[in-house]
Amino acid sequence: MATARRARLSTDARREQLVDLGVEIFSERPFDDVSIDDIAVAAGISKGLLYHYFPSKRDFYVAVVRHSADEMQAITETDPSLEPLERLADGLDRYLEYVANHARGFATVLRAGIGSDPEVAAIVEGVRAAMAHRVLEDVTEAGGSPPAAVRIAVRGWVGFAEAASLEWLERGELSREELRELLIRALTGAVAAAGEASAAG
Amino acid sequence: MATARRARLSTDARREQLVDLGVEIFSERPFDDVSIDDIAVAAGISKGLLYHYFPSKRDFYVAVVRHSADEMQAITETDPSLEPLERLADGLDRYLEYVANHARGFATVLRAGIGSDPEVAAIVEGVRAAMAHRVLEDVTEAGGSPPAAVRIAVRGWVGFAEAASLEWLERGELSREELRELLIRALTGAVAAAGEASAAG
Repeated sequence: MATARRARLSTDARREQLVDLGVEIFSERPFDDVSIDDIAVAAGISKGLLYHYFPSKRDFYVAVVRHSADEMQAITETDPSLEPLERLADGLDRYLEYVANHARGFATVLRAGIGSDPEVAAIVEGVRAAMAHRVLEDVTEAGGSPPAAVRIAVRGWVGFAEAASLEWLERGELSREELRELLIRALTGAVAAAGEASAAG
Repeated sequence: MATARRARLSTDARREQLVDLGVEIFSERPFDDVSIDDIAVAAGISKGLLYHYFPSKRDFYVAVVRHSADEMQAITETDPSLEPLERLADGLDRYLEYVANHARGFATVLRAGIGSDPEVAAIVEGVRAAMAHRVLEDVTEAGGSPPAAVRIAVRGWVGFAEAASLEWLERGELSREELRELLIRALTGAVAAAGEASAAG
C-alpha cells in the first residue's frame, strides 16, 4: 500500500516536472516545430518513457496548456473581502504580472498555440469565461443578473485586455500601471456604454 | 499563347471554386476533422487532381483563410469621403454584416483554426492590424502620430470587437444595431481613456 502510494506520487512528480519543462519548450517554439524526440532529449529520458507519461505530443501539449491556465487562474485569484473596484485593480495587477512574467507562453497560447484542437481551445475559453465571470461580479450589483449588453461588454473587454496586453508586450511603451489604468477605464467606459444601450433599448 | 492563357484562366477558376468549397467545409468542421479525401469527394475530383492545385491540406487551408481575410477586407472597405465617425459606423455595419453572414467561418478561424501555423496566424494578425489601422485613422487627428496609449487602446478594441461579436453570435441577445452602438461607445470610451492616460503620464 505504502509502496504503491510512493510509486504513484513519484509518477505524479515526474509528470509535473515534464509539464514544467513543456511550458518552457512551448514558450520558445510553436507546437508544430517541437518533436517528441526534442522533448525526450530536453527531459533526458527515452522516448518510450515519455510515452509512458503522455501517450502523444498532443496529450503533452494539452497538459502544458491546462497547467498554464490553472496557474494563471491561481495567480489572478483575488481577495473576496476587497471592495469591487479595489479587487478589480488587484486582479489586473496580478494578470499583468502574469502576462509580463510569462510573456512568450502567453503570446504563444493566445496567438498561435491554440491550434485546431478543441480541447486546447476549450481550456483557453475557460480562462476567458472565468475572467469575465469575476469581472462581471465586480462591476454589477450583487444578486441581480446583468443585462445582456453588460455581459457582452465584459466579454468584449476580456478580448480588449488580451489584445492590448499582447501589443504592450511587443512594443512595451507604457508602464504596467499605465496599462492597468487604461484597462480599468476601458472597462468602466464599456460597462457604462452597455448600461446606456440597455436603458435606451 | 491564347491556349496557354485559357488553360491558366481555367486553372485559376478551378482553384477559386475549390477555395469557395473549402470556406464551406472549414466553416462546418475543424481542420483536423477534415481529410484530403473528404475534400476531394466534396469537390467531385480525384485526390491526385486536388494535389495538383494544392500540394497539401495545409496549403489548401491557408488559401481558404487568405480568401476569407481578403473578402472581409473588401467587404469592410469604407468610403474615404465620409466623415470619420460616419465612416466608423459604416465600417462596423459591414463588419457585423460579415460576421453574421459568415458566422461559423468567422468563429472557426478566430477560435480554433489551425492556430499553430505561423502563416495562418499571420493572416489573421494582418486582418486585425488593418482594422486597427483604419480605426486609428478615424479616431485621431489627420497627420499626427497617435500616442502609444491610443494605439494600444485601438488594438485592444479590435480584440473587444472580436470577443463581443463571438459572444453575440453565440447568444444573439442584442440586435446588430445595439451591438454596433456598444462597439462605437466602447471605442470612444477607450480612446478617451487613453488620451487621459497619455495626458496624465
